[in-house]
Formats: sequence, structure tokens, C-alpha cells
Amino acid sequence: MAVATFDLDTWTDACLLRVENALVQWIDPQAPAGLGEAMRYAVLDGGKRLRPLLVLAAREAVANQQADAALDDAALRAACAVELIHAYSLVHDDMPCMDNDVLRRGKPTVHVQFGEAQALLAGDALQALAFEFLTPDNAGIAPQVQATLCRLLARAAGHAGMAGGQAIDLASVGLKLNESQLRHMHRLKTGALLEASVMMGAACGQTSSQAHQGLQAYGQALGLAFQVVDDILDVIADSATLGKTAGKDAANDKPTYVSLLGLEAAKSYANQLLEQALAGLAASGLTHVHALQALAQRVVNRNT
Amino acid sequence: MAVATFDLDTWTDACLLRVENALVQWIDPQAPAGLGEAMRYAVLDGGKRLRPLLVLAAREAVANQQADAALDDAALRAACAVELIHAYSLVHDDMPCMDNDVLRRGKPTVHVQFGEAQALLAGDALQALAFEFLTPDNAGIAPQVQATLCRLLARAAGHAGMAGGQAIDLASVGLKLNESQLRHMHRLKTGALLEASVMMGAACGQTSSQAHQGLQAYGQALGLAFQVVDDILDVIADSATLGKTAGKDAANDKPTYVSLLGLEAAKSYANQLLEQALAGLAASGLTHVHALQALAQRVVNRNT
Repeated sequence: MAVATFDLDTWTDACLLRVENALVQWIDPQAPAGLGEAMRYAVLDGGKRLRPLLVLAAREAVANQQADAALDDAALRAACAVELIHAYSLVHDDMPCMDNDVLRRGKPTVHVQFGEAQALLAGDALQALAFEFLTPDNAGIAPQVQATLCRLLARAAGHAGMAGGQAIDLASVGLKLNESQLRHMHRLKTGALLEASVMMGAACGQTSSQAHQGLQAYGQALGLAFQVVDDILDVIADSATLGKTAGKDAANDKPTYVSLLGLEAAKSYANQLLEQALAGLAASGLTHVHALQALAQRVVNRNT
Repeated sequence: MAVATFDLDTWTDACLLRVENALVQWIDPQAPAGLGEAMRYAVLDGGKRLRPLLVLAAREAVANQQADAALDDAALRAACAVELIHAYSLVHDDMPCMDNDVLRRGKPTVHVQFGEAQALLAGDALQALAFEFLTPDNAGIAPQVQATLCRLLARAAGHAGMAGGQAIDLASVGLKLNESQLRHMHRLKTGALLEASVMMGAACGQTSSQAHQGLQAYGQALGLAFQVVDDILDVIADSATLGKTAGKDAANDKPTYVSLLGLEAAKSYANQLLEQALAGLAASGLTHVHALQALAQRVVNRNT
């Protein structure tokens, strides 16, 4: 019997085509006084789009090969909304009062290109636009789905998620964090939005509580694995490969998994988290999880 | 026959008690690494709370004396959410890369008190928290209402509303705007959120299309009147009364209704907009509009 193989690259290309087209179409270039241009610059033509891919992969897992145009549309909107939140956080994070970065994805950062005031506004407007994407008034998406998507995204982006994690990050430069503190910071700073990506995809379909719990375990392990690998790459990769400045964490005296555990133990922790993520999927009872599996493997085995 | 009189001060006190209590309770002081403290500093104990009052007044108008605990809760959440968006915009607006203001409501601005990075994050987290307020998962508020509130707020806050208006404002320093351009800027910058306040209150109840249109006309006229009066006060009031720096618009060479029309014509335009707002209410066919009427009068006749 032939075993169906899953090709992540082909799947990714098809998803990214949908996501990029939607972003190009939905971020209004006519937004006033150059704001639209700055917003598009911040979002388009850049990034690996991991969060949108997680949304679409989780939607596939819960759709169970049942087509539903409204829920597919909801998932695409969620995929784009999560990316807008991620993009706005990078714009603000790069600003002089935060990390003061001048390069992002090989291009001048938004504040270098458009000025600090416009960067601040573009970030603010991207966050609002994320919630606008989730609440179209004539797309046939059930209000229940819209409200759930807004709830998941707002919590993941705010003080108990990404913004809270960034505040801890700010406050922890030069401090010795123990592993539990470091994990807490990263659960909030990057983990919350990655986990929300999975759960927003899952919200675009019916899930049993078993499936919900399995996907949540997957999302949590994946979110942490992403950060552990990020810390490893900051040490072993060069800036050209990363598309951003390597060695920055050590230079900025930031606590990382590598500084805490050492390089080899950090690598083995990343692999352990990958196993946890895959075990979560297995426990979900869902069968169409090829894309989620392959994405977790890609997150841990990436070199950029 | 005794005519029932409406006492705006008594009504305001009762509403503000609910709003302040909710804000104190819902903005988590435990948010990590000082972020909660900065968020609370930005929101609590300050401001006239015009936007929350408009939400609650509009809810009263559409509730038509029918109590409904879930819709009352939705309106209170909407009132707080709108105030969070307003508060975050002030935090970001005061930052050095924008208006570089050191005083707000008689206190040091957030970035002066907590540093620029924390101010940036606090503003970001307040925006997310607004959408979190609107989407509680166990409050019995219909998903339809939650989704509508998110939609109205996201549009009013984003590139086609407040953030877009601020971008125009940034770009128009030193320029001569004509009246239509000035009106467009203010419709977005302050008008959109004031109008959304009214429409969010209206979304917490059933409205006929006549009532909807009347309230929208009210909200639009009121939003513009607010800005015209702001421009007038910037010229005729002193800083102590305003609680912020007077004369700033002229000093910054910003176009205003006073610089465009002259002081007397600006005053008469404000009164004309008040008449339009009241005419909108009359056309709505709604009867419980005392608070909305009195708020419009207060907006135009205020001296701070």
C-alpha cells in the first residue's frame, strides 16, 4: 500500500500564497499620510510567517477534510491577524527606546525608513487592524468564532502575553534568571502568540476537549522550543544567515537558554520539547496533523 | 404638571463610580515587571471620561428602561475599553518622538515616570486589554454583541480612525489645511473614537435603522464639536485650567479651527454642531436621550 507522504514545502507555498495575497489586499495602501505605506513595509515581503502557518495547519487539523468556506476565511483572517500582531511588535521592539535596531530582515527598520513617530503609529495601527481583520461584518463568519478569535488574540498580545513578556525582558537585562523565570518570560514573550496561533486555528472548527487539550500542549511546547532554538541560533549562526544581528543576546547581557544551560543541554532541551509537542498531537486524537507535525520539526531543526 | 428634570452631574457621578470601579478591578496590578503599574498610572484617577459616559448614555437611550444585566455589563466593558484606547493614545502621543509632553492631567507623563520603553509597552498592552475587556468568555454577553463591539472599536482606533488621524496630524504641521482637510483630520483623530463610543453603547441594545442613523449623526457632530471647542480652549484658556499646556497648537504651528476660521466663527461653528447633534437625537425617535443631550451641551459649553 502506498503511504501518502506530506511535503511541507509544497504545503507552505500554497498557504503563503493565500496569506501574502490577503495581506497585500487587506492592508490599505491608501491609509492616510504615509501610514499605509509604513504598515505595508512592516508586514509585506518578509518573515517566515510561522504564526500564520500554525493557524492554517491547526485549521486543517480540526477541519478534518470538511470544507467550509466561512471557516476557511476565518482561519485566513486569523492567520493574517496574528502576523500583524507579530509585525507590530517587531516595529515597536526595534525602536530606539527599546532594542534600537536598524536592520530587520535585511532592510532598514521601520523607524529608520519612516521616522520614529510614524513607526509608533504604524505599530499601533497594525494592532488595531488585526482585530479589524477578525471582525468583518459581511463575511458570514459566525459571531461566536469572531469573538473567540478576538479573545484569544487579545490575551496573547497583552499584559498576560507578549507585552508582559517584553516588560519582563526589559527588566531582566543584566539579571541572573533561573530556568523557571526564563521559561515564564518566554512563555509570555513569544510562547503566548505561538500558542494562540494554534488555538485560533482550532477555533475555526469544532474540537472535542481532548483535541483542544492536545493542541494546547502542542502549542505550549512548540512556543518554548521556538525560543530555545532562537537562543541557540543567536550563538551559533552568523548575522547574514539570520538576517539580523547575531550574538546580540550575549552582547546585551540578556539571559538565554544557552547562557543558563550551556549549548549542548539547550539543544537537547529543544529536542525534548519537540517530543512533547508531537506527543500533544498524538494525544489530541486528531488525524490530519501532518502540517502541525512538520512545522514543529522545522521549528526545532531550522538554521535561521 | 411637574416636568422631570435631568441632572447631568448626578448621572455622571453614578456612571463614573461604575467605570472607575471596573477599571480599578480589571487592570491587573500584577501584570509583570511594573507593566501593570504603568498601565494603571496611565488610566486611573484622571480625565473627564467623556467616551465612557457617551457609551453609557447611548446604552441608556437604546435600553429604553428595560434592564438587561448582560447588556449593561457589555456597555460597562465597552465604556472601559474605549477609555483604554483613549488612554493608550495619550501615552504614545506624549512620547518624545511624538509631542514630547512631560505633563498630563497635572502629573508627569507615563514615559517621564516609567521610562520610554515601559510607556511604549504600556500603551501597546492597553490597546490589547481593550479588546480583552470586550470578549469575556463567561459573562453571558452574546457573541454577536462582542463581535460588533470589537469591530466598531478596531475601526475607530486604527488607520481609518484615530491612528490615521494622528498620521495626518504629524504630516500637517506647518501646512495650510483647508476646512475640508482639517475636518477630515479631526473626524479621524478624535471624531472616530467619540462616534464609536456612541455606536458601541447603541450596540448594547436593539436599534431601528432610524435610531441607528440618528445616533450616528449625533456622534459625528459631537465628535467634530469636541475638536472645535478644543481648538478654542487652546487659545482662550490658561494651562492651569486645562491641566495641559495651553497655546500649544499655535506654538507648534498646527492648523486649528481658530487659525482657519477666527475665534468668533469657530465659536459659532461649535454651536452649529451642537444643534446638529441634538437634531440627530430628535431624528432618532429615541426618548431616553437626556444624558446624550446633556453631554453634547457639556462638550460645547465646557471651559476645560
